[in-house]
Amino acid sequence: MLAFLGGTGPEGKGLALRLALAGEEVVIGSRDEVRARGVAEELTRLAPLARITGARNFAAAGADVVFLTVPYEGQRPLLEQVRGSLTGKVVVNVIAPMRFERGRGAIAVAVEAGSAAQEAQGLVPDCLVVSAFQNVSAEELTHPEVVMQGDVVVCSDHPGAKDLVMALTRKIPDLRPVDGGGLINSKYVEQITPLLLSINRTYKIHAGIRIVGIDRQGDRRDTG
Amino acid sequence: MLAFLGGTGPEGKGLALRLALAGEEVVIGSRDEVRARGVAEELTRLAPLARITGARNFAAAGADVVFLTVPYEGQRPLLEQVRGSLTGKVVVNVIAPMRFERGRGAIAVAVEAGSAAQEAQGLVPDCLVVSAFQNVSAEELTHPEVVMQGDVVVCSDHPGAKDLVMALTRKIPDLRPVDGGGLINSKYVEQITPLLLSINRTYKIHAGIRIVGIDRQGDRRDTG
Repeated sequence: MLAFLGGTGPEGKGLALRLALAGEEVVIGSRDEVRARGVAEELTRLAPLARITGARNFAAAGADVVFLTVPYEGQRPLLEQVRGSLTGKVVVNVIAPMRFERGRGAIAVAVEAGSAAQEAQGLVPDCLVVSAFQNVSAEELTHPEVVMQGDVVVCSDHPGAKDLVMALTRKIPDLRPVDGGGLINSKYVEQITPLLLSINRTYKIHAGIRIVGIDRQGDRRDTG
Repeated sequence: MLAFLGGTGPEGKGLALRLALAGEEVVIGSRDEVRARGVAEELTRLAPLARITGARNFAAAGADVVFLTVPYEGQRPLLEQVRGSLTGKVVVNVIAPMRFERGRGAIAVAVEAGSAAQEAQGLVPDCLVVSAFQNVSAEELTHPEVVMQGDVVVCSDHPGAKDLVMALTRKIPDLRPVDGGGLINSKYVEQITPLLLSINRTYKIHAGIRIVGIDRQGDRRDTG
């Protein structure tokens, strides 16, 4: 069971939908149980055979793997509420800290810990934080007919947890996981999101990134 | 005439070589004139028909377009030396501020101005700074038989200067320029470089990035 805390937002909804379509059982978490159930029903209409339920964040945090898909401002209060449920678990941090300015679009917010993912690891030291999926277009995720073409850069200080998230990534056609190294690199990945949002505005697209060079010269990790 | 100040380093050498092969006249700048001339001769052996000379940075800064390809620590002293020559000129900032730690590789260095490019613009307010080429592998640039496959994200607050650098980018097969918006976005691009260096270590490759989504849905800028 995969939980998406804050999964009523676009990125959480999209990831939950895609992983449910891939056969994973998912639970949408929200502060508001009615809203969580509403989104679960909405996604079930798009994926009638999938197993999708809704619950309050606190209950959803009981799942095996927990995705954090709240806006950055919500990360600390959310983790303070649910951290007791996260001991030993893989926690996938999808959060890109940003603020939006009129006429300028998205601007990265400085995080004292370095990145949202490092802050989450600091707030819940006994869980296994993996940073991933920040650069994947929510708009495209929520349209299952769209074949994704970007890469998911995955950063973590916990190799087993990183491998698990890389394997989950491969379940979404045609996303490719790329080993981005330790959590110290998450900052760079999180800050690609406001860059992509700027490119989206300029080109009227839903941009993603791809790491070039891996295909050409052989891939130490992606052969499995 | 294009100048590459600090062009004896790998990134400057590679860019100078590729643009010389594309027909541009280039001058390699260095603090040490003998070293600049030595690199110019080395590049001329790779591109015998190209027009490549060497000079001290101060003299090279007289060129029409000036590329900054020194390590970040060298940016401020270099600009203090040559800023009198840069008035009204396009200055292409290729610098990604990083430090290297044993066993951990490259780590981004925080810049008070936000990015190296914004700092350069602040130090020489009457030039036209364009941020570009930070994410292109120096190793691949210096091997002319390698067809580049990445994108060059170009950021500037000066639209005409940005267009000029995007046009220069297109001269290097098969690099593609992507309009990355204003100089405020340069930070995100500069910080992709340490991420790519980490991926290089993991996969034993020379990684670059590509913005996906532009091809598929039409490109407002790249049709020319």
